[in-house]
Amino acid sequence: MREVAVIGAGMVRFGKYLDKGMKVLARDAVSGALASAGVGQERIQAAVVGNAMAGLITGQECVRGQVVLREMGISGIPVVNCENACASAATAFHLAWLYVASGMYDVVLALGMEKLYHSDKKRSFAAIASAVDVEAMQALKAQLQSRPHEGAGEQSGGGSSHSMFMDFYASFARKHMKTYGTTKEQFARVAVKNHRNGSLNPYAQYREVYTLEDILNSPLIAEPLTRLMCSPIGDGAAAVLLCPQSMAGRYTAKPVRVLASVLASGSEEGASVERAAHQAYETAGLGPHDCSVIELHDASSPAELVLYEELGLCRPGEGGKLVDDGTTELTGRIPVNPSGGLIARGHPVGATGVAQICEIFWQLRGEAGERQVANPKVGLTENAGGMIRNEPAAVSVHILGI
Amino acid sequence: MREVAVIGAGMVRFGKYLDKGMKVLARDAVSGALASAGVGQERIQAAVVGNAMAGLITGQECVRGQVVLREMGISGIPVVNCENACASAATAFHLAWLYVASGMYDVVLALGMEKLYHSDKKRSFAAIASAVDVEAMQALKAQLQSRPHEGAGEQSGGGSSHSMFMDFYASFARKHMKTYGTTKEQFARVAVKNHRNGSLNPYAQYREVYTLEDILNSPLIAEPLTRLMCSPIGDGAAAVLLCPQSMAGRYTAKPVRVLASVLASGSEEGASVERAAHQAYETAGLGPHDCSVIELHDASSPAELVLYEELGLCRPGEGGKLVDDGTTELTGRIPVNPSGGLIARGHPVGATGVAQICEIFWQLRGEAGERQVANPKVGLTENAGGMIRNEPAAVSVHILGI
Repeated sequence: MREVAVIGAGMVRFGKYLDKGMKVLARDAVSGALASAGVGQERIQAAVVGNAMAGLITGQECVRGQVVLREMGISGIPVVNCENACASAATAFHLAWLYVASGMYDVVLALGMEKLYHSDKKRSFAAIASAVDVEAMQALKAQLQSRPHEGAGEQSGGGSSHSMFMDFYASFARKHMKTYGTTKEQFARVAVKNHRNGSLNPYAQYREVYTLEDILNSPLIAEPLTRLMCSPIGDGAAAVLLCPQSMAGRYTAKPVRVLASVLASGSEEGASVERAAHQAYETAGLGPHDCSVIELHDASSPAELVLYEELGLCRPGEGGKLVDDGTTELTGRIPVNPSGGLIARGHPVGATGVAQICEIFWQLRGEAGERQVANPKVGLTENAGGMIRNEPAAVSVHILGI
Repeated sequence: MREVAVIGAGMVRFGKYLDKGMKVLARDAVSGALASAGVGQERIQAAVVGNAMAGLITGQECVRGQVVLREMGISGIPVVNCENACASAATAFHLAWLYVASGMYDVVLALGMEKLYHSDKKRSFAAIASAVDVEAMQALKAQLQSRPHEGAGEQSGGGSSHSMFMDFYASFARKHMKTYGTTKEQFARVAVKNHRNGSLNPYAQYREVYTLEDILNSPLIAEPLTRLMCSPIGDGAAAVLLCPQSMAGRYTAKPVRVLASVLASGSEEGASVERAAHQAYETAGLGPHDCSVIELHDASSPAELVLYEELGLCRPGEGGKLVDDGTTELTGRIPVNPSGGLIARGHPVGATGVAQICEIFWQLRGEAGERQVANPKVGLTENAGGMIRNEPAAVSVHILGI
């Protein structure tokens, strides 16, 4: 297989765009990627478009990619629409990588996009609720109704569906606390870090800086999760351009190499992140301690702490220690979520995976502005989506290098 | 890129399964493919799942593939959910092919599935209506409301949305009649052929034989289209297994080689089928007259006649002649839609493309029973999906050989 490089990246600031449709968001992200690569759109030979929920939000159930690409004058080429819930965009990137790695196409676009806000909030929540086995969820809902659980505001999702995910994260967090002595303050510190990073990122949905007390005192979603520890609902789009590493020099002096592209799904055995990460490290010939910068799927701040362990940044149970010693701070040994992560940069579901790639692209090229990590050489992204039987339905890990 | 072979195929009879969900349909198709290849499901290394409309029909907007695969005990592996409207399954096959051709995985499952019937028919029609630019369609609908147009029964779609597609096919058919002198009887003869072929196919949704008069006298949808010239709504699933040609001998003495796998989208220039077919012929090093058997996207019978021309089986305007001289009959020089095509085998949107591959697989192996074509060596499939600005949003052409 050919070695593949990312040669351009673009995204819109994640946020609430009641006045902008997906066509506009996607166009701005793609324009940014093309400009960044110095490539005209007529050079794009194939496009893979990730989106999770437009069918339920806008009714555009089919051919979402063609609809937005045609609008910006991109047509004729193969367009693949792919979906893997919150990992839809990482899946799009994986397939775009596959097109190039296989030798089939030379210049391929990966686009992730989501318009999650709707004037009728129920639509947004119903869409998020579909990232599980819907039949099984209906059974679970009936079960949950037998015990009280917390409502949630806009930041946390607000509806029973999104908070169902947050219930899961909360119960996971409580288990970690009980098993390893991890504290609520440690989860809060992850959120402090990500909000601070987000405040430095012009693409971040939330740019406020919060103290530990702010985080702890924000409304409780489900013990120990507070609202500011949870990723918000949002709209957004992110795009990257890929080509063979051997041709990348035509477009840029600083191509970012794709060292591993892994997609996996949950199983009875669990540990799907560990499996995907292991495969990625093997493929790249690197280990977790070779990573200079990481973007991971902090749908809630406890998830980030646990992912430190699952990605092998520390041993099981030591995630809290990593928080305490500042290892994953912007100035630490392995900065995690310099973009602000899902918590602060935002999480427009089908855009997140490519936004993570954008961030690593900018970081490795030294173009990350105020949130720039010192001299990174290797970056990793982890994006997960959906949930079936308490395991992510999809997990994707990418390793990039410069 | 590696040469790829299809080693197993399975599908359920297409039809109306109000009592069966997608999990059951998919399981039966996958079991069939595994049994056909003599492969245990633990050998599957990756799966690509095509589905177009479950989000709007059942609410399962996300991770549809994982939901059905996990149910049958297939987990852990990469699962890509892809969508390209009526060409969703061909897209799934294309990506499965890409996984194998690239060298990334050796045994890959392509699954197409659709549960289109719903006790509330409006849901089915709303889902079909989403295979266009939904924003643009709303404008078109407003325009269409200013002139009367025909309703349609169950076979033809019945709602304003499906009949919007049929309106398009009808206007296309009228144009062909005017330009080339093609007759309504010729369109009807295509339907006679496909229904007759379907009557020989145990997987076909409709197995009735009709006379020319039956077809012409069935309810008018939009001149010249009658109900029996149109593909029905249906439920179904189809699956195939792919592996490298170099390994296929381990599994079967009769692997079916994939000679070309092409995906394209519509453009301002039109002729998207011609472009896709041309690319497929070039890749395979073959021409249209090398094809022994063809499965194509006869969403309506005029579409089949026009596709004869677009695929190069005859010159522009000569589709009617091909019908008259019986070239595309089961016993003709180039049998087309031996399965009964979309019109008779049925068209559960996201399953159709893989069902076409299944049919060619069986035909090339001499396993097509009563509808077996004499000694075919090369088969072609054409699957198209969605419509944007009067062009298919997605077109896929595959060439297979034995």
